[in-house]
Amino acid sequence: MTVSLEDVQRAAERIAGRVRRTPVIEVAPGLTFKLELLQHTGSFKPRGAFNRLLTAKETGELTGQGIVAASGGNHGLAAAYAARELGVPARIFVPETTPAAKLGTLRTLDADIVQVGSEYAEAYQAALRVQEETGALLVHAYDQPEVVAGQGTVGLELLEQVDGFDTVLVAVGGGGLIAGIATAIADHAQVIGVEPALAPTMHRALADGAPTDGTVGGVAADSLGARRLGDHAFAAVQAHHVRSVLVEDDAIVAARKQLWRDHHLATEHGGATAYAALTSGAYEPTAGERVVVVVCGANTDPGTLI
Amino acid sequence: MTVSLEDVQRAAERIAGRVRRTPVIEVAPGLTFKLELLQHTGSFKPRGAFNRLLTAKETGELTGQGIVAASGGNHGLAAAYAARELGVPARIFVPETTPAAKLGTLRTLDADIVQVGSEYAEAYQAALRVQEETGALLVHAYDQPEVVAGQGTVGLELLEQVDGFDTVLVAVGGGGLIAGIATAIADHAQVIGVEPALAPTMHRALADGAPTDGTVGGVAADSLGARRLGDHAFAAVQAHHVRSVLVEDDAIVAARKQLWRDHHLATEHGGATAYAALTSGAYEPTAGERVVVVVCGANTDPGTLI
Ligand SMILES: Cc1ncc(COP(=O)(O)O)c(C=O)c1O
Ligand SMILES: Cc1ncc(COP(=O)(O)O)c(C=O)c1O
Repeated sequence: MTVSLEDVQRAAERIAGRVRRTPVIEVAPGLTFKLELLQHTGSFKPRGAFNRLLTAKETGELTGQGIVAASGGNHGLAAAYAARELGVPARIFVPETTPAAKLGTLRTLDADIVQVGSEYAEAYQAALRVQEETGALLVHAYDQPEVVAGQGTVGLELLEQVDGFDTVLVAVGGGGLIAGIATAIADHAQVIGVEPALAPTMHRALADGAPTDGTVGGVAADSLGARRLGDHAFAAVQAHHVRSVLVEDDAIVAARKQLWRDHHLATEHGGATAYAALTSGAYEPTAGERVVVVVCGANTDPGTLI
Repeated sequence: MTVSLEDVQRAAERIAGRVRRTPVIEVAPGLTFKLELLQHTGSFKPRGAFNRLLTAKETGELTGQGIVAASGGNHGLAAAYAARELGVPARIFVPETTPAAKLGTLRTLDADIVQVGSEYAEAYQAALRVQEETGALLVHAYDQPEVVAGQGTVGLELLEQVDGFDTVLVAVGGGGLIAGIATAIADHAQVIGVEPALAPTMHRALADGAPTDGTVGGVAADSLGARRLGDHAFAAVQAHHVRSVLVEDDAIVAARKQLWRDHHLATEHGGATAYAALTSGAYEPTAGERVVVVVCGANTDPGTLI
């Protein structure tokens, strides 16, 4: 089942007041940044998390058992934040390798943190088991329709905030964000995915005709390092003929520094990846093309910005 | 002559398209940040600089001799930026103590940098001399009507962007920003100045009945360390009954860290000073009071944010 425009519109109504309508700034003629790094918890992820939780609240699936999620990164922060705001407990499963700083932030959100295994997949399996045992609600990082629809509200806001645009550049991990945005703005503008060359989930899915597992690495792996594209994302990018471009790690590093130097935006590598497509030339707009870049994450060590 | 609301309105027309209409975000119910740190060059200062240059262009005072300004900080960046955009040369006089990083940024703006003396006052005297010898246009950091009127455009934008507010908190150095904002919004909301306890120019002016020189120091001295309040600022704060509160350095430091931790905004100390009035309790809003904080500067070493 492909997520529909109506799903995104309903998500927008559902999460209104819970998430920020993040600002846009035109940084050059025809070039606009959507400042989704100013969202609660520093990334767009609360959009999908709130939509998942609030939908489950309507259907009765959200109980006193609360939620489980697997992620030491932005998804974990967002899920914990949404659960706290809605007054339900959150158990967040993170790999034992998760940096102390991230654990600290998670703890400030009252989440119950369970460290397990050495990588994401193990944490995810543990979350699934607890979900089955307890009936807690599993909040996936990208591959659930409610999550895709929630992330798509970024696209609806763009339609209201930006007076005409041709192209939106979006970083891709598991594909929830790009799938949602493509669904929201399909009739208005094209969406281009931007992927680290070292974690090209969408490229691989399009080449293989279906999402397949691959290795992940590179500077943006903590946010864009999904092993495979989500099934819902794949359906959406196929339905809307979305394509993607690849950027090398050094282009991501340079774009992140440029965002700080030229625009005073402190981003994580995943948050600068979409912009890297422009600065590296991986995506070259035609003359007069009006481009929006989704600047989507700020959870970074600011000491590494210069 | 006190700067009038009409002066600010004319400034807004004059500088439209040259400066950014910076976004606002509501960070909590009734608490809004004006993100003036996302202005070109990382502070509000281009507003006043453009208004000064464009006014002088209209009157013929801006010639091929270009401009002179004294400042190793945000004013210097803004003046150099405005001059470059308008295609006139800029000579920026800075103390010999100006950090290399700031000089580097100034150089990227094509300014001709003259290092002179060990403090601002000497650089300013040198700028004045060159102004007299060459007929270049002096752009003051705060004490010129066009500069005050330009900074006031922040206030006009607030009236359009924020749906009702009672109070605006504004950091004070030489007072150009607060004077302009107070002039712009006098009929709509109160303006509260926030000053470092170690550089209380406005407090002193109000106590002494006129701007008087004082010592300056503290963590925010590079942006808020004017020796005295400007005469135009004094006229405006008197006319509009503006008062100010003092904040200690440790409150400024804490507010700056909190802006990063909670809101992913990287600010310099002067840019966090207005917020420090809230976080320290130096200013306590009443129940239901709707407050705007002007977050006004981002030129900082991000390595010191955590
Ligand atoms: C900052 C940032 N950008 C982009 C993404 C990718 O989102 P998705 O997995 O929905 O493709 C993530 C995912 O964690 C992220 O944190
Ligand atoms: C970031 C910042 N905030 C506030 C001020 C104070 O402005 P004013 O001198 O107009 O009071 C300055 C002045 O340089 C500044 O750079």
